[in-house]
Amino acid sequence: MTYQINQTHDPNLKSWVESANDPNTDFPIQNLPFCMFRLIGGKDEGEQIGVRIGNLILNVEGVSKGVQAEPPLALAWDNVKVSYFVTDLGLLLNATGNEDRQRIRQFLVSLLRQDTSDNVRQIVSEYLIPISETNLTSPFEVGDYTDFYCSIFHATNVGSMFRPDQPLMPNYKYVPIGYHGRASSIVVSGTDIKRPRGQNRSDAEKPPVFIPAKNLDYEMELGFFVGKGNELGQPINIKDAEEHIFGMCLVNDWSARDIQAWEYQPLGPFLAKNFATTISPFVVTMEALAPFRTPAFERDPDDPQPLDYLSDENNKKFGGLDINLEVYIQTEKMRNENIEPFRISRSNTKDLYWTVGQMLTHHASNGCNLQTGDLIASGTVSGPDKSERGCLLEMTWRGTEPIELPSGETRRFLEDGDEVIMKGYCEREGFRRIGFGECRGRIIPAE
Amino acid sequence: MTYQINQTHDPNLKSWVESANDPNTDFPIQNLPFCMFRLIGGKDEGEQIGVRIGNLILNVEGVSKGVQAEPPLALAWDNVKVSYFVTDLGLLLNATGNEDRQRIRQFLVSLLRQDTSDNVRQIVSEYLIPISETNLTSPFEVGDYTDFYCSIFHATNVGSMFRPDQPLMPNYKYVPIGYHGRASSIVVSGTDIKRPRGQNRSDAEKPPVFIPAKNLDYEMELGFFVGKGNELGQPINIKDAEEHIFGMCLVNDWSARDIQAWEYQPLGPFLAKNFATTISPFVVTMEALAPFRTPAFERDPDDPQPLDYLSDENNKKFGGLDINLEVYIQTEKMRNENIEPFRISRSNTKDLYWTVGQMLTHHASNGCNLQTGDLIASGTVSGPDKSERGCLLEMTWRGTEPIELPSGETRRFLEDGDEVIMKGYCEREGFRRIGFGECRGRIIPAE
Repeated sequence: MTYQINQTHDPNLKSWVESANDPNTDFPIQNLPFCMFRLIGGKDEGEQIGVRIGNLILNVEGVSKGVQAEPPLALAWDNVKVSYFVTDLGLLLNATGNEDRQRIRQFLVSLLRQDTSDNVRQIVSEYLIPISETNLTSPFEVGDYTDFYCSIFHATNVGSMFRPDQPLMPNYKYVPIGYHGRASSIVVSGTDIKRPRGQNRSDAEKPPVFIPAKNLDYEMELGFFVGKGNELGQPINIKDAEEHIFGMCLVNDWSARDIQAWEYQPLGPFLAKNFATTISPFVVTMEALAPFRTPAFERDPDDPQPLDYLSDENNKKFGGLDINLEVYIQTEKMRNENIEPFRISRSNTKDLYWTVGQMLTHHASNGCNLQTGDLIASGTVSGPDKSERGCLLEMTWRGTEPIELPSGETRRFLEDGDEVIMKGYCEREGFRRIGFGECRGRIIPAE
Repeated sequence: MTYQINQTHDPNLKSWVESANDPNTDFPIQNLPFCMFRLIGGKDEGEQIGVRIGNLILNVEGVSKGVQAEPPLALAWDNVKVSYFVTDLGLLLNATGNEDRQRIRQFLVSLLRQDTSDNVRQIVSEYLIPISETNLTSPFEVGDYTDFYCSIFHATNVGSMFRPDQPLMPNYKYVPIGYHGRASSIVVSGTDIKRPRGQNRSDAEKPPVFIPAKNLDYEMELGFFVGKGNELGQPINIKDAEEHIFGMCLVNDWSARDIQAWEYQPLGPFLAKNFATTISPFVVTMEALAPFRTPAFERDPDDPQPLDYLSDENNKKFGGLDINLEVYIQTEKMRNENIEPFRISRSNTKDLYWTVGQMLTHHASNGCNLQTGDLIASGTVSGPDKSERGCLLEMTWRGTEPIELPSGETRRFLEDGDEVIMKGYCEREGFRRIGFGECRGRIIPAE
């Protein structure tokens, strides 16, 4: 059960890595997200698996060798199936169920907790690298990327702009609506985003023109990575859904609204979205998120209940997630004038109409095979309040209500030089705060 | 230029492989499509690159070693960059432009032509394997799969069923409409297709039910594989588009129409399509297809011309393809009674409104990065005549006009046990016929 809370979530647990004990860090010993990294400078040993703790990255391959010098550690390491760890997150996940992942987590905690032996500390500290000496890359080569549309607030807002007579389609409360995105153009936080060109027909009296997109937008989403996959033709029971989820990241599903409005019928968004999707580099495990589970979205009494294949008592009780999502913007002018990034929205994943388990089970319900490293995203996470709208399309109501920035500038949509910074974190009374780090991207001009 | 005809297309060119000289074969020496295969029985050496000739597969890795014994051959082989050949079609393609591919073709022809030396014949014949001793696998691990909607006849037919007031969207004649499909569930010809379950709301008065799909359909499509890719942010000029296309195959984009009708708004088809897509195993190269190029679709005088980024003189003159596509069905009853598969439609890719070059250039026009081995399909290929409708949805007009089979059975949509067999071939006066082989799949019941 990925919902279970155990001693690795104890808020009093501290690490001998001092920066992990900072109450504001996203990365205390209670988090320990996975990542892939390369060393900056020195010998390039290619991409390696890391685990983030405080301001440091633990080199997992390195430490797996290092602990062999210490028999009790070597034994414990064998117990967590060290061989899977060595070179590739995919191999690790393909071979592991939740119990294995719990053991891995326990073992990492045992290495990093404050009361571990000096000997262990000495061995492990050789494999800790300051984050500033690493380049973080995408945690997976994503095979397939699927984007859902699970915020009923987002769907209702967008629907009422484009289809005022029927904002929410009749299928919405039965079907977790989703579509396939582009895997090849997934980039990691920090990658510049070139403004795409595309067909724009804002003047319906004239033919479309092929120009740099005018209405460039972000979408604040939650993403999750598939751990263990399923065979083609073999659905995944809702009771087992979370066995197949490794962990989570932040997703910015960049969207060119002018391209989208013109191209999207009848087969959905295509070039409006597939020029880039940015993900945060850390995979926050489902084990780390256990204290922040919530009941699934509470439906209106008039709403239909999920069909049987999407219904499960545990999913209903614990299937939701209490993750705060924040979007900041910093324009070029703000950077030049040393004005801090400005928060333009804050939303929460507990407002998603469908749970991650329901998304995954629905996806595989026709036998579609999910594979290790596949990325599945929630769709824009918006809440009921105006301050909780997860994209500019909603926030500025299709550009009609520009937002004001502390630099005196206004924005309908994104301008060249704007940087969008997304953050995610979990807080709960009686638990340590954990976070996702950042998901950043700056708009550079079309050529 | 992939349109160029040279001596490898000479209809009088014969091979010392006798089965390649059969006038009815899909695989004369003028074709030489690539494939990936495994040996049946004997030592499994994993997947290997093959080239089909007549009833045989040439083991490319094997022959690349074999020719080293013969200095002139070894020299010629070096000239075609043998090292790329060895293990992986992707590596081959990533490193080769059209000129390289022309050299590879010339070299293969030189090995297999009737008037080659006895010595060469002896060397090469050691690496020829009867097709019956091989299992053909997917030519690529497809990274991303994109499906277009390029038959205006298909789009108009389907549109008039679902949106009688506006069969063809206003964007259709400007935008090559496409969407992302599922890469993980692409399977090779011969793989059984399990009927998917999904939400069906055929009775609008009641809630949807989750049941095995009732309206299971095929879609007869042309697919092409990306050879050389492009970097993220770097569009592909229409003049260069075909430099990026390696070759073609047949595609059956299986579709569950009842799932599709209920789920597809507003983001397009998802579970209605992603349970399986079948491809034929041979990649017919653009070089082999050179004699069968046609002008692009002739637009009505009232139709808009393609926007500049999709316009090119060569594309207009030669961008089309004259490929005959046929769909056959054989039911379980027909198999039991030894009734041959029955042809239910015949269409031709020259009826596609957009060329493959336009599809590719449009896809990358926003900077989306295409990668070696990506599969791009045309959408259902239908022609103006009723006999040219490329799916049952059109053929039976949403099930209202069932087709009659020689067994006395009728079909609205596919039943369990039905096998769909697709064929593709090119014929032109003064040239040898070449073909694609078959793309087969049989429906097995939902569990």
